[in-house]
Amino acid sequence: MKLYDGGRAPNPRRVRIFLAEKDISVDLAPVDLGAMGHRSAEYAALNPWRLTPLLLLDDGTTIAESIAICRYFEELFPDPALFGSSAIARARVEMWQRRVELGLFTFVGAVFRHLHPGMAEMENPQIPAWGEANKPKVVHALTLLDAHLAGSEYLCEEGFSVADITGLVALDFMKPAKLVIPEDLANVRRWHAALKARPSAAA
Amino acid sequence: MKLYDGGRAPNPRRVRIFLAEKDISVDLAPVDLGAMGHRSAEYAALNPWRLTPLLLLDDGTTIAESIAICRYFEELFPDPALFGSSAIARARVEMWQRRVELGLFTFVGAVFRHLHPGMAEMENPQIPAWGEANKPKVVHALTLLDAHLAGSEYLCEEGFSVADITGLVALDFMKPAKLVIPEDLANVRRWHAALKARPSAAA
Repeated sequence: MKLYDGGRAPNPRRVRIFLAEKDISVDLAPVDLGAMGHRSAEYAALNPWRLTPLLLLDDGTTIAESIAICRYFEELFPDPALFGSSAIARARVEMWQRRVELGLFTFVGAVFRHLHPGMAEMENPQIPAWGEANKPKVVHALTLLDAHLAGSEYLCEEGFSVADITGLVALDFMKPAKLVIPEDLANVRRWHAALKARPSAAA
Repeated sequence: MKLYDGGRAPNPRRVRIFLAEKDISVDLAPVDLGAMGHRSAEYAALNPWRLTPLLLLDDGTTIAESIAICRYFEELFPDPALFGSSAIARARVEMWQRRVELGLFTFVGAVFRHLHPGMAEMENPQIPAWGEANKPKVVHALTLLDAHLAGSEYLCEEGFSVADITGLVALDFMKPAKLVIPEDLANVRRWHAALKARPSAAA
């Protein structure tokens, strides 16, 4: 199998962190997003949605979407369980993964894509007002997370999960988006520091 | 258990369709979104994210997020499998679910939320330019889906799945968003008609 990887972009990194947490190594095929490699005809033949990452299996089957790729590896290598180890835990990992992805990561992404000059070609048209409208959404999401993290080390009570990986990627993505975690959100800051200290964060 | 339901909104409907496909009945607790019932202090105590639907278990555990709720019911009632019945099928269902949710449903939602006068209170500020920018994204997504559906009855080769439920909800949501499926996308039209004809579509 081969993992088409998009380098520094947040979604490819989610998968690399997941693989590092499970100590899985996979052949990487780099896709240069800066040079619009994901928009090439060759890549579009593999993924018409032109997004990275993409997992190509030896029989030609493709799996796109970072979380779908992670879920596939979870089935191949169940330990440590990063999607939960019981029906309720799996449902709550899914809940937290979605809350952080749809309710934080997406907002940070909108700020970055609609306000960063370097994104003008990829996000066309850029709507600066939409970028600005997402800034308070980011703060509100962090405030909700901070309240939750007052009583929990990681997002899910059971322990570290793929939801935390999405959280790390979202928080780190705030830097290029020129956003900062408010000083008073001590629980989010503690959680971010703990995630950054894991060896997988270097992936 | 009790399902806090948001009536006509698309996400609560996803769960009701899923339950209908599995012939599961659950006690519903209606939440009146029009009267901002999801913003009440009582509801926020159950779900600080103030989104519907929400599943409340008898022991007080909550599961928010429509797909997390569906996944929990999939574990309790595995047949028929709507998240895939093998590791590869499960990964590909996840891939299609995400493609349709993040790459169609979200775009339709942005058109609705940012251009419909009735959404001015819920989506504040409305950014009409962002609503307009999502219209071509919807058409592009439908074009990609049409090409895929030329060779597949449902999104996943294995058969009907939760990805198709998200697809139905997204396509039906185009009506209040004042969007139409382009005439020439015959495969999307065939797929939509097939989904609407299933008894579960009445849910």
